Amino acid sequence: MLDSERTLNWFPEPFRRVCVVITARPSYSRVKSVLTALKARHDIELQIVACASALVTRWGRIVDQIREDGFKVNAEIPSVIDGNGLQESAISTGVLLTQLAGAFAALRPAVVVTIADRHETLATAIAASYQNITLCHIQGGEFSGSIDDKVRNAVTQLADIHCVATNRAAERVGRLIGNDRDIIHVTGCPSIDIAAEALRFGPLPSTDIIVLQHPVTDQVEEAGEQMRTTIEAVKATGLPATYFWPGEEAGAEAMSKELRLAGLHPIRNKPPLEFLRMLLGCKVLVGNSSVGIRECSFLGVPVVNIGTRQQGRERVRTMYDFGHEQERITKGIQFWCGGHSIAERTRLYGDGHAGERIASILAGKAQEAVA
Amino acid sequence: MLDSERTLNWFPEPFRRVCVVITARPSYSRVKSVLTALKARHDIELQIVACASALVTRWGRIVDQIREDGFKVNAEIPSVIDGNGLQESAISTGVLLTQLAGAFAALRPAVVVTIADRHETLATAIAASYQNITLCHIQGGEFSGSIDDKVRNAVTQLADIHCVATNRAAERVGRLIGNDRDIIHVTGCPSIDIAAEALRFGPLPSTDIIVLQHPVTDQVEEAGEQMRTTIEAVKATGLPATYFWPGEEAGAEAMSKELRLAGLHPIRNKPPLEFLRMLLGCKVLVGNSSVGIRECSFLGVPVVNIGTRQQGRERVRTMYDFGHEQERITKGIQFWCGGHSIAERTRLYGDGHAGERIASILAGKAQEAVA
Amino acid sequence: MLDSERTLNWFPEPFRRVCVVITARPSYSRVKSVLTALKARHDIELQIVACASALVTRWGRIVDQIREDGFKVNAEIPSVIDGNGLQESAISTGVLLTQLAGAFAALRPAVVVTIADRHETLATAIAASYQNITLCHIQGGEFSGSIDDKVRNAVTQLADIHCVATNRAAERVGRLIGNDRDIIHVTGCPSIDIAAEALRFGPLPSTDIIVLQHPVTDQVEEAGEQMRTTIEAVKATGLPATYFWPGEEAGAEAMSKELRLAGLHPIRNKPPLEFLRMLLGCKVLVGNSSVGIRECSFLGVPVVNIGTRQQGRERVRTMYDFGHEQERITKGIQFWCGGHSIAERTRLYGDGHAGERIASILAGKAQEAVA
Amino acid sequence: MLDSERTLNWFPEPFRRVCVVITARPSYSRVKSVLTALKARHDIELQIVACASALVTRWGRIVDQIREDGFKVNAEIPSVIDGNGLQESAISTGVLLTQLAGAFAALRPAVVVTIADRHETLATAIAASYQNITLCHIQGGEFSGSIDDKVRNAVTQLADIHCVATNRAAERVGRLIGNDRDIIHVTGCPSIDIAAEALRFGPLPSTDIIVLQHPVTDQVEEAGEQMRTTIEAVKATGLPATYFWPGEEAGAEAMSKELRLAGLHPIRNKPPLEFLRMLLGCKVLVGNSSVGIRECSFLGVPVVNIGTRQQGRERVRTMYDFGHEQERITKGIQFWCGGHSIAERTRLYGDGHAGERIASILAGKAQEAVA
Repeated sequence: MLDSERTLNWFPEPFRRVCVVITARPSYSRVKSVLTALKARHDIELQIVACASALVTRWGRIVDQIREDGFKVNAEIPSVIDGNGLQESAISTGVLLTQLAGAFAALRPAVVVTIADRHETLATAIAASYQNITLCHIQGGEFSGSIDDKVRNAVTQLADIHCVATNRAAERVGRLIGNDRDIIHVTGCPSIDIAAEALRFGPLPSTDIIVLQHPVTDQVEEAGEQMRTTIEAVKATGLPATYFWPGEEAGAEAMSKELRLAGLHPIRNKPPLEFLRMLLGCKVLVGNSSVGIRECSFLGVPVVNIGTRQQGRERVRTMYDFGHEQERITKGIQFWCGGHSIAERTRLYGDGHAGERIASILAGKAQEAVA
Repeated sequence: MLDSERTLNWFPEPFRRVCVVITARPSYSRVKSVLTALKARHDIELQIVACASALVTRWGRIVDQIREDGFKVNAEIPSVIDGNGLQESAISTGVLLTQLAGAFAALRPAVVVTIADRHETLATAIAASYQNITLCHIQGGEFSGSIDDKVRNAVTQLADIHCVATNRAAERVGRLIGNDRDIIHVTGCPSIDIAAEALRFGPLPSTDIIVLQHPVTDQVEEAGEQMRTTIEAVKATGLPATYFWPGEEAGAEAMSKELRLAGLHPIRNKPPLEFLRMLLGCKVLVGNSSVGIRECSFLGVPVVNIGTRQQGRERVRTMYDFGHEQERITKGIQFWCGGHSIAERTRLYGDGHAGERIASILAGKAQEAVA
Repeated sequence: MLDSERTLNWFPEPFRRVCVVITARPSYSRVKSVLTALKARHDIELQIVACASALVTRWGRIVDQIREDGFKVNAEIPSVIDGNGLQESAISTGVLLTQLAGAFAALRPAVVVTIADRHETLATAIAASYQNITLCHIQGGEFSGSIDDKVRNAVTQLADIHCVATNRAAERVGRLIGNDRDIIHVTGCPSIDIAAEALRFGPLPSTDIIVLQHPVTDQVEEAGEQMRTTIEAVKATGLPATYFWPGEEAGAEAMSKELRLAGLHPIRNKPPLEFLRMLLGCKVLVGNSSVGIRECSFLGVPVVNIGTRQQGRERVRTMYDFGHEQERITKGIQFWCGGHSIAERTRLYGDGHAGERIASILAGKAQEAVA
Repeated sequence: MLDSERTLNWFPEPFRRVCVVITARPSYSRVKSVLTALKARHDIELQIVACASALVTRWGRIVDQIREDGFKVNAEIPSVIDGNGLQESAISTGVLLTQLAGAFAALRPAVVVTIADRHETLATAIAASYQNITLCHIQGGEFSGSIDDKVRNAVTQLADIHCVATNRAAERVGRLIGNDRDIIHVTGCPSIDIAAEALRFGPLPSTDIIVLQHPVTDQVEEAGEQMRTTIEAVKATGLPATYFWPGEEAGAEAMSKELRLAGLHPIRNKPPLEFLRMLLGCKVLVGNSSVGIRECSFLGVPVVNIGTRQQGRERVRTMYDFGHEQERITKGIQFWCGGHSIAERTRLYGDGHAGERIASILAGKAQEAVA
């Protein structure tokens, strides 16, 4: 898919240094299979930079997990400005950019990999592209109807290689960057690779309900209330539930406060595989995580998707959306927990081999896309 | 063109605060007529932030000129990291972003305006959009075949209002952002407003040749040699020539060195109107400035356009392009200086009323585009 | 004390702009009476910049309280890098410095006031002194036997006016800066002003024990264990106790964890006056806060001072120190709660008029020191 | 001089990593012999971080010279904000601090070495001391009567090891830090080591006059005029003169402008040894460089010292000071060029073995001070 000349330009080293920048716990989960595949290749030297909320205890400090999983972390760059407001997001991005420039200058990667659409990803994209380092963007071309779309599409504009999850995403990236179709690769989403593994290992004991809700960028003011509505809806079912802390974003503090006020003890962090096996063991996922769209559609786990955060994303027919209305959410949960219906399983977001496919592309050996 | 609901959302104040961020001398020239039109309106409070090379003496420190022209500068944000390399561009952008976030928080504009495609414009775009401030981008949708395109298109993704110069630019922005055509306005390029004024005042005495050449982002290593070739080509004509210093970008130092070695005394800075009247008085513009594409096509000044910097931009039929070959450049200059041919005048990039049109849009009163 | 020429140099304005930088909750408590006195003067324009942990919810976000108390906050500068490590302290200071430089350039104060010895105070001191703004340091010349001493003394070197709490502190500052004794003023500590007010209002109902323990900079690793020891010691007395969260510093997260594990519900924030009246109502303060040294010696509240954090500070005879040994701490608490002994009251750290005195000095009208 | 326990605490590695931070051309000259001595030791791993104006072409970009001299540069950190004002100095320091924190975290030195008193040295000192890395300060305890004194003394407060040039400097540091005399070492100034080498090699052909004048921090406004006065005074002698560009500091641009206007072609950069041999070949040094105080007193080169920049520094009896008065400066130059008098040679600032002595101290093996 890549013509040989372009490929040669990418190879300034006997092996190619590929630097993956991890900014948060969910980013790591999504690319873990990519990291594993990159590490296994002899033509690649894997570099990992951990930054932003990947270093912050209250957001699950995934950097320790990365090391425990056997990866070397080449640099840690603290950059999250504490404060939970909008000004802080902008400053954090600036502070990360300032430091990442130096990290890339020191590590001298041939390719930098950035994932998805968090605000920090733009810092990675700028630091790489302004220094003429080939930038690979994973999970471009999606749609979520929030400022995340702006960030994701801006990163797409700066990227040189695009590894997207679905055919529709490939089309969208194609429209964004013009005719350069040969730099767009439909690899499937690497998060599905772990879901595939979870299926092989089977479910872990779990509660009926798993709750995973994040703040929505343009509804920061309502974040606390949205969390409270969900908590009340879950409690009204009377069924056992497991809660997770929200991810680091403007609005998260208000949500955390509601969780504490409700006397809940949310879980901070789970190894991705374990989390997916827990999911496989539950009856319904409640919240607005993209896990509901991606992994659950592969695993066949029902989802009560709340609010607008996943609006516009490709999804399975049997996934139902809800507003922030307590009663309706309660009913939605009861419907799936009643066991009368089964969610469908699809390969919409991947077949479980995205990691190897992306690693192969980064090594300059393009592969066929998901059929 | 804007529906009333959207318009209402924009009006948090009795008058709307519009903050224009000026990062460099050429940016100021381009938006001066917008600033004048904004200042004249009673429904707008104009704010100006001067930053990056707008504050640096060797790049013409345009901030002093802005004040002399009667505008109030609300904040000065030094951000250019000295060093002229690629790492510095990335760090400068991070340092600017870190500080701009606070400036916007203090100034509380309803709309932030950013211009064109320099690397710092992404800092402006991020600082505004991450803080949910409406972002207006002037001169999106163009094409120059360098990293500037990436930056320009990334800013387009983050922007909420697009004031573009030409219909083709409007099409390109439309493709980039999807169907939201009602936020794209073909206003013409405001730089043409000053060109129209220059026509009214008439030419100033000038040399036969004016040389204005900048480094090309992906040819930083060759910048010095490119400048030398041009200098030699101009000298070979034996005709009187006026040189300008290159703009602040990676590679500029090598070019400045060549200019000094050649014993030339380039001009650092000219008020825009005076510059265009000088241009009107010369026989040919030599170099790779976008002035050759825009203002010269309006003024009917011939251009010897060198290298790839303006590749892909819309242009008049009678504008000729040259590689970095001394002999051919010399011949090109001699052709136009011989006086046998006249360059055409067009309204391709505007009709001289872009400033008022953009001000009107920023005030929430949309206007018809250039016919 | 100040000669008239020096004073005149300070007056670039009809009234002098004095900018007080508040970096944390305890800093605000300490200078509240200074702010009140500055605001009351007609020859002063008070400016307040709130930054660092003064903006962070988990550290009591004192900026809201400042506004509720009727003060105008001229700028908010988020700067705390989340992460709780040593690298983060250094980066936070750099990020604050970068932004403060611009804030001072915009606010144009004649004098900047910084308080005590937190790591961020060096950012304030550098931003002011590098921009030739007169720097006033409150609470220099003290001694605490940790890196705080280094920071405090470095700020002293950069400061132009020194308002110290005690005669011994004045001596120490004098030794640090040479013979310039006329810029050192023994004003008393402004924190005592609120203590004086608390005495006038009388005690509030309180628990027997109040616990206020912070991490020690060079014992970050032990912070959690130190907290646990204290908690166990307090629990062993069986007496009712009120806990406060530790201040934002490396090590605080480990301490917070212990407080949560022990099932305690520490208080996050109290208005200073209310806090001191609570203190007046308790039988003993336990921990390592400087409140134990300063306010308690004025109020006559007994203190069980633990560890090395207050080592070397001037103190009353009847204040007892303890290591991190559970049994001994328990006995110390029981001794004071038994009611057989009374702690002495002194004016060692001030007479309750420091605020007016400092305001007068900042206005260029020097006053006699505490007799 | 160091007790063994303290020494052991310094040794976390089989060999000790010592990181020297070079912020400018003159800093490198001063510590080159230290670097050579450190590199030669088997118990030390030398790390070099080049930053600030050490990376800037117009300030002599000494980083290239460092590499040519056979040293490895572990990190380059661009940090100079272009603009030449006071706000820029503060921001530059913040930007450097932000990045240095990460560099130290990556390089993990046991000791960081900072030199003298430029504004950036505080960034080095903070980044090291806040991360609990032993900080060695070279050239503390001196006096120059400007803001440099504040910076130098603030660095002294943060430092753990002090290598000073003279006994009087040792006394001053002793007074600043209290009784910890065993961490103060009178090593002589390492700049004298190169002067000693220059004596061995003998003079190079030179002009009668060498001019080396820098801006004075608290006289930034007058910098241009001061330069002009000196230029006129030198021209009035009619003697051949060699000029050097001023160092990067607020005010330097105005001085550079005067040099250009006068049609002079100042030298940007000379290898230290070559420069000192040139100095040995001239009849008088004119300006305000500390070279006039230090190296010239060792070499016996006469100095016409202008203005207040070196006020208060220890000096030889036969060195004469001048105000910024053209006529008197002219006469001073003529006096020395007349050849009737000889400047004395002293060991006031060192005996030529400072480098080895400092390297030995950094390795934990203390040595006797200069007798």
